[in-house]
Amino acid sequence: MKIGVAGLGLMGGSLALALRGRHDLSGYDISREARDAASAAGIATVERLEALLPADAVIVATPLGAVLPTLAALAERRSGAVLMDTASVRAPVDAFAREHGGAPMVGLHPMAGRSGRGFAIADPALLLGRPFLVVPTATSTTASLEVAGRVVRDAGGVATVCSAPEHDRIVALVSALPLALAAALTVAAADGVSDLAIFAGPGFRDTTRVATTPAELAETILLANSGNVVAALARLRTVLDDLERAIAERDASGLREILAKAAATRTALG
Amino acid sequence: MKIGVAGLGLMGGSLALALRGRHDLSGYDISREARDAASAAGIATVERLEALLPADAVIVATPLGAVLPTLAALAERRSGAVLMDTASVRAPVDAFAREHGGAPMVGLHPMAGRSGRGFAIADPALLLGRPFLVVPTATSTTASLEVAGRVVRDAGGVATVCSAPEHDRIVALVSALPLALAAALTVAAADGVSDLAIFAGPGFRDTTRVATTPAELAETILLANSGNVVAALARLRTVLDDLERAIAERDASGLREILAKAAATRTALG
Repeated sequence: MKIGVAGLGLMGGSLALALRGRHDLSGYDISREARDAASAAGIATVERLEALLPADAVIVATPLGAVLPTLAALAERRSGAVLMDTASVRAPVDAFAREHGGAPMVGLHPMAGRSGRGFAIADPALLLGRPFLVVPTATSTTASLEVAGRVVRDAGGVATVCSAPEHDRIVALVSALPLALAAALTVAAADGVSDLAIFAGPGFRDTTRVATTPAELAETILLANSGNVVAALARLRTVLDDLERAIAERDASGLREILAKAAATRTALG
Repeated sequence: MKIGVAGLGLMGGSLALALRGRHDLSGYDISREARDAASAAGIATVERLEALLPADAVIVATPLGAVLPTLAALAERRSGAVLMDTASVRAPVDAFAREHGGAPMVGLHPMAGRSGRGFAIADPALLLGRPFLVVPTATSTTASLEVAGRVVRDAGGVATVCSAPEHDRIVALVSALPLALAAALTVAAADGVSDLAIFAGPGFRDTTRVATTPAELAETILLANSGNVVAALARLRTVLDDLERAIAERDASGLREILAKAAATRTALG
């Protein structure tokens, strides 16, 4: 297929590197530096977004705030390309597809990541065996979903289909909630311990690692999905209340029940 | 020095392996299997706790619940040995030393660990460069603190002295709180997401890793220091309330302030 990738950061760069061997692939990034880095890594690049068209498919992998404008610019060309995007919050794209119509759009959210950003740390290995959440929109067709499925396979991922509301509810629990907790734990510990670097062991460091997410990106993740994030925090509070009550009342068996469920669940994840 | 180690699990085994090259070291464990494993690794072992005496120092590295009985059994021999213990909660030992008197006792809590337990995963590298919290008791003497300092140095650690109340307040924030949050996050996510293994990415996995702590051990860590743990949870709630309010009210600048503080603090920890 002829595939374009718009946005050559960590995710777009990794997708481009993973797909270029099997497809006629071109990449575009608003930053010349990113385009040059991708070129140096052997990816064909174009100087303007529109030059990715015509294509069988374009994958929009820009920062979240740029996804809708980029989809709009591509959709108005009516090129027939399947438009995919890696947005980690699906409601805005879902609404856009419903209102806009026209181009077939499919969400494609790889559940993969690492600390840092930019093409410099892009790596196709990041995607291997990872779940790609395929999220149909009002304009998705059988053919466009097949294209999405083929992209997932060729990138080495595993496709999982879910609706936009279900996607956003789930990522609030598995992505946004860890981010909020890691940030809260870091701030609470720093406020309470003056020499945190001395006392922070491997457990503290693991639990707070995602707090290194740049504040701008973390803010977007939490605000763009705020309804689901607030609901996820409420779920968390329920369990935390039970834990705190058991600790304060020295209810060993109640406490053990929660801890044993957590240990069994987390150990099973591997 | 002639040094005994009582309890040859992950921590006692690592200490014994780290110290045996520089000291006349013997180890004891209530389990024959652990004694045999330590012997096979070249550590001299004895068949009874009391056979660790006479010695210049004995390090008690048993599970938390066995620390006081082990210290009591050693103290009543009035051998002159400095008694150290690795208990991760200091208040009970602090009270014991005040009431019991006699033997010079010093807390020695290495801020180190890894998943799993037992001599099989003991490793002197675990201790290298790690902070060892040296916690004086009512019976500590200058000479016994010097012995503790030498043990820390010879094990490759870095000594940090703090009082028992300060120790327990700090570990509630940096050890117990991550454990409680990781458990609560794991349970909340598992309750809300039926196929958690599919959706859990590296961020979720890092944030919940300490929830694999065996429930029995986690329960002890939370209950033995319950007053400080409840206070640590209250601190956490304050920050979480601020975060939630900022998300719910879409207060981007208030949210950014918390997230930026967390990112800067956590990034500085390395």
